[in-house]
Amino acid sequence: MRILISNIKSLLQVRPQHITVLAGTEMAILPALENAFLFIDNGLIHSFGLMAELPELQADLTLDAKDRLVFPAFVDSHTHMIFASSREEEFVMKIKGATYADIAAQGGGILNSARKLQRMGEEDLYRAVLPRLDEVMATGTGAVEIKSGYGLTVADELKMLRVARRIGRETPLTVRTTFLGAHAVPSHMSQADYVKLVIDEMIPAVASEKLADYIDVFCENGFFTPDETRQICEAGKKFGMQPRLHANQLNRSGGVQVGVQVGAVSVDHLENMGEEEIAALKHSATMPTALPGAAFFLGLPFPPARQMIDAGLPLAIASDFNPGSSPSGNMLMMLSLACVKMKLTPEEALNATTVNSAFTLGLQASHGSITKGKVANVVITQPVPSLAYIPYRYGLNLIDAVILNGKPILNNLV
Amino acid sequence: MRILISNIKSLLQVRPQHITVLAGTEMAILPALENAFLFIDNGLIHSFGLMAELPELQADLTLDAKDRLVFPAFVDSHTHMIFASSREEEFVMKIKGATYADIAAQGGGILNSARKLQRMGEEDLYRAVLPRLDEVMATGTGAVEIKSGYGLTVADELKMLRVARRIGRETPLTVRTTFLGAHAVPSHMSQADYVKLVIDEMIPAVASEKLADYIDVFCENGFFTPDETRQICEAGKKFGMQPRLHANQLNRSGGVQVGVQVGAVSVDHLENMGEEEIAALKHSATMPTALPGAAFFLGLPFPPARQMIDAGLPLAIASDFNPGSSPSGNMLMMLSLACVKMKLTPEEALNATTVNSAFTLGLQASHGSITKGKVANVVITQPVPSLAYIPYRYGLNLIDAVILNGKPILNNLV
Repeated sequence: MRILISNIKSLLQVRPQHITVLAGTEMAILPALENAFLFIDNGLIHSFGLMAELPELQADLTLDAKDRLVFPAFVDSHTHMIFASSREEEFVMKIKGATYADIAAQGGGILNSARKLQRMGEEDLYRAVLPRLDEVMATGTGAVEIKSGYGLTVADELKMLRVARRIGRETPLTVRTTFLGAHAVPSHMSQADYVKLVIDEMIPAVASEKLADYIDVFCENGFFTPDETRQICEAGKKFGMQPRLHANQLNRSGGVQVGVQVGAVSVDHLENMGEEEIAALKHSATMPTALPGAAFFLGLPFPPARQMIDAGLPLAIASDFNPGSSPSGNMLMMLSLACVKMKLTPEEALNATTVNSAFTLGLQASHGSITKGKVANVVITQPVPSLAYIPYRYGLNLIDAVILNGKPILNNLV
Repeated sequence: MRILISNIKSLLQVRPQHITVLAGTEMAILPALENAFLFIDNGLIHSFGLMAELPELQADLTLDAKDRLVFPAFVDSHTHMIFASSREEEFVMKIKGATYADIAAQGGGILNSARKLQRMGEEDLYRAVLPRLDEVMATGTGAVEIKSGYGLTVADELKMLRVARRIGRETPLTVRTTFLGAHAVPSHMSQADYVKLVIDEMIPAVASEKLADYIDVFCENGFFTPDETRQICEAGKKFGMQPRLHANQLNRSGGVQVGVQVGAVSVDHLENMGEEEIAALKHSATMPTALPGAAFFLGLPFPPARQMIDAGLPLAIASDFNPGSSPSGNMLMMLSLACVKMKLTPEEALNATTVNSAFTLGLQASHGSITKGKVANVVITQPVPSLAYIPYRYGLNLIDAVILNGKPILNNLV
């Protein structure tokens, strides 16, 4: 299928192939073509340029993007979007003053999600996820990372990851998978026994089916220590799983430092950071990733995103879509939270959710920018005065069309 | 047109006619019928009840609300939705560290909106507002208050209010209008001269065309003093305009107390409250109204909504939709902010945005609840497990249909 998008007011995030990470002041720059066209052929970005220089092109579908912006689909590099059911009852408990401990005592939290997921068959689990995929694609997401971590048994972790791989095969979303067996310790096991299970049984089983691209650990006081995190990451690396970590959400837990030590591609959350953590990241290839949806929903301080960028670091932003602490996979909302609450400019926020988040998933050759030969994953906005208008109008879904793999997923233009 | 909504999972906010204000612990209660029907005839709620007792009814349209909630459309009791253009450029200036004073010095703020609105003709202004009306109706709003205050000359204040009245006549929204000449002092006038203009010329001119139901003043340090607020309110009252005030947004300015003294129907904002203000409200008929969108967008502390309800007060919630400090009229987002940030239960949040907000606009006889004979303004949700799911899934518009005045405005059910 050949699609011509014509009369684009502004084609954003136009990059040469070799630009793969943006750090510090580079993040404020968003290369754009005004009054442009984009031509898609056979699922890939074939060519683009100024309307004044539009060559003769045979298209099966022409979309007039007058007054509209076009940018690469979002890459959401941190989600837990495979879960058996929502947890709004815990949301109400928290409103009424219940603490994390109270909720855990009543069977809530991660173990609640695990219990429900363990009871659900693989086919049912896949079907439960499908409406969430439609939601995130409709808000402009084209590639996602999906974690396990609500299984907590060998069989159930495998089940989750098989569902994640199937999403990658059978839906328009590009999927990278992460094994997060070390998400919480099941109530009937000791910490040591569970870490042993993760290392000795889960990791080899996951690897034997090639189910995970990455390995993750919830490195946090009360969950897994930096030492355990290191052991689990090293075990995963032996089977080809690169580390990406949950770090510094609730405490300055040492998660950032251990992430840098094990060569994690990303450390995610970062609500609790000091100079030491920022210094550690400065001398590393590890991407800091902010998850503003979780900070918003839990009422935590937001990650010091401005400070990290000003220190010269790169930054990625992801949704953390999960039923407990961030029940939204809407990346437009993450742009709003990034700008309103973390004081990123709209350009920085778009760079963080496309180029930089794609890099952490190893998708820099195929996703995250408008580049010849990349996968044709693009968003066409509604008529808007500027990019800034999109995060400014928080809570509005200002998208007219989403094209993934060169095919329209959503199209209000025809 | 006769519409039968059948198989409703839960019909919420079913009230007898005499319930018009909910205070304190009453706010936690949301009367509901499970597995219900609702019958609409000629624009009004004709009848409702259990499906098991469904009588024979002739309907022109039947909507199957299986797995769905039905509740009264939101009443948004504080908006500035008539404006000439958005102000996302100021949003970016603020992200980059500009203060309110910096923005004002560069011609920004309320005076920016005024300059643009003064240049726009009445017909163009009306047309500029129409897409915003579609936005708010699609997110479940059925009645709105609309303020002037971006005119700041006699002619331009009248122009705004004529547009507001026209919205009430020509669109499905029920509209109540508020004269807010005392929103800011134009830069070429002295404070005293402008207050005199508001009292001596604007109020009589507005009254002679019957353009305003209410009078409002931005009672805040640097804008209008409590004394000026009192004078302006008393002048408005002589012409039949009831006071409703902007109070305590930026400071404990005395706005709440003066509101109580002049018998305001509502005092709105309330980010800065102390025991004294709460005590003043306790012995009054003045409704406290929280505007969580503005607190979110400006990064202000949220109003102490929980504390006010716990003190036995009623509470209304509105959007403050305006281009500077709350560029959203999405009441679903206000529900989320109320629950996530102000720790209201979903039931309290729905009561605050329907029954209580309707009361402040004198719409208690016709709007805000599922009551026989009231205007048929109802929202049908998407399939959801419970009311709590709606604020929990922040940023999602979980609505399948909106019926205003007995006619479908949005309908994804057929």
